[in-house]
Amino acid sequence: MSSTTAPTAASPAVVDLNADLGEGFGRWTLTDDDALLSVVTSANVACGFHAGDPSTMRRVCELAAARGVRIGAQVSYRDLAGFGRRAMDVPARELADEVAYQIGALEIFARAAGSRVSYVKPHGALYNRTVHDEEQATAVVTGVRLAGGALPVLGLPGSRLLAAAADAGLPAVPEAFTDRAYTARATLVPRTRPEAVVHDPDAVVARALGMVRDRSVAAVTGERVPVDARSLCLHGDTPGAADIALRVRRELLGAGVVLEPFA
Amino acid sequence: MSSTTAPTAASPAVVDLNADLGEGFGRWTLTDDDALLSVVTSANVACGFHAGDPSTMRRVCELAAARGVRIGAQVSYRDLAGFGRRAMDVPARELADEVAYQIGALEIFARAAGSRVSYVKPHGALYNRTVHDEEQATAVVTGVRLAGGALPVLGLPGSRLLAAAADAGLPAVPEAFTDRAYTARATLVPRTRPEAVVHDPDAVVARALGMVRDRSVAAVTGERVPVDARSLCLHGDTPGAADIALRVRRELLGAGVVLEPFA
Amino acid sequence: MSSTTAPTAASPAVVDLNADLGEGFGRWTLTDDDALLSVVTSANVACGFHAGDPSTMRRVCELAAARGVRIGAQVSYRDLAGFGRRAMDVPARELADEVAYQIGALEIFARAAGSRVSYVKPHGALYNRTVHDEEQATAVVTGVRLAGGALPVLGLPGSRLLAAAADAGLPAVPEAFTDRAYTARATLVPRTRPEAVVHDPDAVVARALGMVRDRSVAAVTGERVPVDARSLCLHGDTPGAADIALRVRRELLGAGVVLEPFA
Amino acid sequence: MSSTTAPTAASPAVVDLNADLGEGFGRWTLTDDDALLSVVTSANVACGFHAGDPSTMRRVCELAAARGVRIGAQVSYRDLAGFGRRAMDVPARELADEVAYQIGALEIFARAAGSRVSYVKPHGALYNRTVHDEEQATAVVTGVRLAGGALPVLGLPGSRLLAAAADAGLPAVPEAFTDRAYTARATLVPRTRPEAVVHDPDAVVARALGMVRDRSVAAVTGERVPVDARSLCLHGDTPGAADIALRVRRELLGAGVVLEPFA
Repeated sequence: MSSTTAPTAASPAVVDLNADLGEGFGRWTLTDDDALLSVVTSANVACGFHAGDPSTMRRVCELAAARGVRIGAQVSYRDLAGFGRRAMDVPARELADEVAYQIGALEIFARAAGSRVSYVKPHGALYNRTVHDEEQATAVVTGVRLAGGALPVLGLPGSRLLAAAADAGLPAVPEAFTDRAYTARATLVPRTRPEAVVHDPDAVVARALGMVRDRSVAAVTGERVPVDARSLCLHGDTPGAADIALRVRRELLGAGVVLEPFA
Repeated sequence: MSSTTAPTAASPAVVDLNADLGEGFGRWTLTDDDALLSVVTSANVACGFHAGDPSTMRRVCELAAARGVRIGAQVSYRDLAGFGRRAMDVPARELADEVAYQIGALEIFARAAGSRVSYVKPHGALYNRTVHDEEQATAVVTGVRLAGGALPVLGLPGSRLLAAAADAGLPAVPEAFTDRAYTARATLVPRTRPEAVVHDPDAVVARALGMVRDRSVAAVTGERVPVDARSLCLHGDTPGAADIALRVRRELLGAGVVLEPFA
Repeated sequence: MSSTTAPTAASPAVVDLNADLGEGFGRWTLTDDDALLSVVTSANVACGFHAGDPSTMRRVCELAAARGVRIGAQVSYRDLAGFGRRAMDVPARELADEVAYQIGALEIFARAAGSRVSYVKPHGALYNRTVHDEEQATAVVTGVRLAGGALPVLGLPGSRLLAAAADAGLPAVPEAFTDRAYTARATLVPRTRPEAVVHDPDAVVARALGMVRDRSVAAVTGERVPVDARSLCLHGDTPGAADIALRVRRELLGAGVVLEPFA
Repeated sequence: MSSTTAPTAASPAVVDLNADLGEGFGRWTLTDDDALLSVVTSANVACGFHAGDPSTMRRVCELAAARGVRIGAQVSYRDLAGFGRRAMDVPARELADEVAYQIGALEIFARAAGSRVSYVKPHGALYNRTVHDEEQATAVVTGVRLAGGALPVLGLPGSRLLAAAADAGLPAVPEAFTDRAYTARATLVPRTRPEAVVHDPDAVVARALGMVRDRSVAAVTGERVPVDARSLCLHGDTPGAADIALRVRRELLGAGVVLEPFA
């Protein structure tokens, strides 16, 4: 999909901004949903398996719909205690059904708010696992198809997940991470490495601009590597994160980039 | 609604048969879903809050759709440990959202099977509580409306729940219990009383026939009391229950009763 | 127990300070445990049913033991989604067993830290329900006794819970709330009333001093009413709460009050 | 440990019989606890993470204590939906704390019944994972040590788990499976293979006898391979399983084998 959005003399650069939202649960809150919904064009809404109680889901859907932000199902392993960050060997059939269940639950609130679930993005360990694990990647896609409507799948370029989505005829939407370091092979530096995350707000903003305008980013080894992204993932669960996200948005707009949902 | 289904010379008696299904969870099973789906015309499918994992929900929906059985959302308090049998003081807004969440999750599997969620019936303590509790009854109806589509609500005649549904413009469908004793005032004998449940299969079958043909049942005090039921609730979670349910079905059909879903 | 701690010319006022701690769950945090453990003499530690994952429980126990703070089991209904704030009709036998389960889980971490569970205090809706509900109050006490060791029970003066504890031969420890308004009958003003909570830090500190030195507090109607408290409950889950708690501690110490655990 | 129990002219063969018990949850039941407690000498009691509600735990402990059956903590990943059968990448520190939490909860009920938790055995996916995964094996042992008392660990001969237990100074108790096929290298035939499970009751009984008296078993390839087992694991969650378990017990007793807990 991304090739159609490359900037040319005739067409400005177009990108979507996505972030995780609604990641509280009952008494607990995490993400600054209100601030982020003024920044992003696509909201990855937690669906109850790693976070996200029904009332939070409803409120986030109402806010997103009112602001024209697309609603995506941020599906996860069933793991509240681990916030969906612990990989699980879930059999494919169960995983597909769990994905469909979460999409269905969110769809009710999206529709009630006058919108729809417009895409699916796996969360945490499920996101990481489906980069390489073909069986689980296919299971997630089976779950998306079970939910009907040929929803786009948002994920990592080169991942098994996007390949499985494309194989199934679903739009496969590649994203990039503005605050993650990239290797010389254009893959993410693992989080276990100290240089994995870019903390400097100025650097994050500069990288976002480069990812969209030049379709590249500086690798940790210095050289620029290509980035194929129809969407940029912003983080909202750390102090100051919403402020950085807002700066990224403003700089992109200031540079003439069109912020437009992919879905 | 029931008044339109009273038998006359020109029109035979019509009734729906409903039962709770899919009340396992993961490794655990409870209801004999396959047998019950050959008996009922409406299946109350557990949606994950008191029972019902996603894979069970999908399978039950597939079987129900294949047999022309209507799919209903059996919504519950969030209480796996108590099987939804412990009343909870859930604030109205949360309860409405929890109801909508469950309907949405089930709707995905109903649609994937080529069907739809056709009605809503509260489970266990939520069923009992909404007989008298106006706030929770209204909250359940708010949740049903949030889910869209003006779904019928199945419940106890005279309950706050059915009144709230009717007030909201939703079809309010009264049901009767073939194996529960009734008082002289045509209400259910509380389960805390030893005579609350009718165990004799012959008596259950005879009561079902009387409920449909004569629109009455013998109270524990001997006299016949009126029964207003568009659906009969059959139980499937005790040994031999599926056999009794099948007998009720056969006797009703043998007596010329038309078994027809209300939804 | 409280009568033995009344201040006289020969003995200074003695009081315990308690607060809820460890009320996060997995990725989510709530209470400022580190700050509060520098203030209180007794820590009500969440045990996993309304909050409190095992790793948080271990860390809080280690910190508490290192600082000589007593460890109490803050037992709750099983309700993560509602943070234990929704009353539940749990059968007495189940409730007693759930209470014992939570105490046992915490005891392991208290022992591993070189301490012990020294008392039990119900949380949220269970606390409120056992003020008046004799069956559930007795069930909580049954659970405490099942756990062995005749643990003290911390609760509201005049509550069924403390009466049941005393009847069972357990120390019944009355507490007062420094930031809650009291009626002319010395009961708490219900939270549904706007004046229920005292927000002014100076007022909170002054009330704490009065509760300990004069054993009384100003009711909302103006007159002073008696307060029978061996422990003062401080709140730690709102912004600035830990700071107010620290001020209460300092003012009490400055006034010559001895801060001493009851257990 | 097993070398001390080998049969000689002077000393009869000694073995322990263990089985999983209390694997229901709330409304759901699975294992025939009453029947199995008449067979085994050690009961692996579910502690609430894959199965096992507090009331079931209490009842099983009471029955076990009354019959002199040792109580073991059957610890698991936190996974009710998957019955603990889905391997999870739980960080070591969390896993250790989760193990300790479960042991602590069970210990309360064991003590209340006049007994103690006498050993620990991982369940399902955690059992399988700790055969090869050193980090998780060590984490389980860390959890056991956190719980205090140098509890024995029951597991597969040659597993990382037993090695980690021995390294930590805990008794490492090897077990054999009477209804599982063994390879020529004396390891278990994977469950993915059709011949993995021995279904014939006569064969199961014969294998049990051979495992204890000859300390060997016939491999799938025909030759006898050595079996080093201080305990035999019996299954109780399939139809007829309790009957086979009882036959194994009787045949062993009839052959002069002494049934004796290892703990």
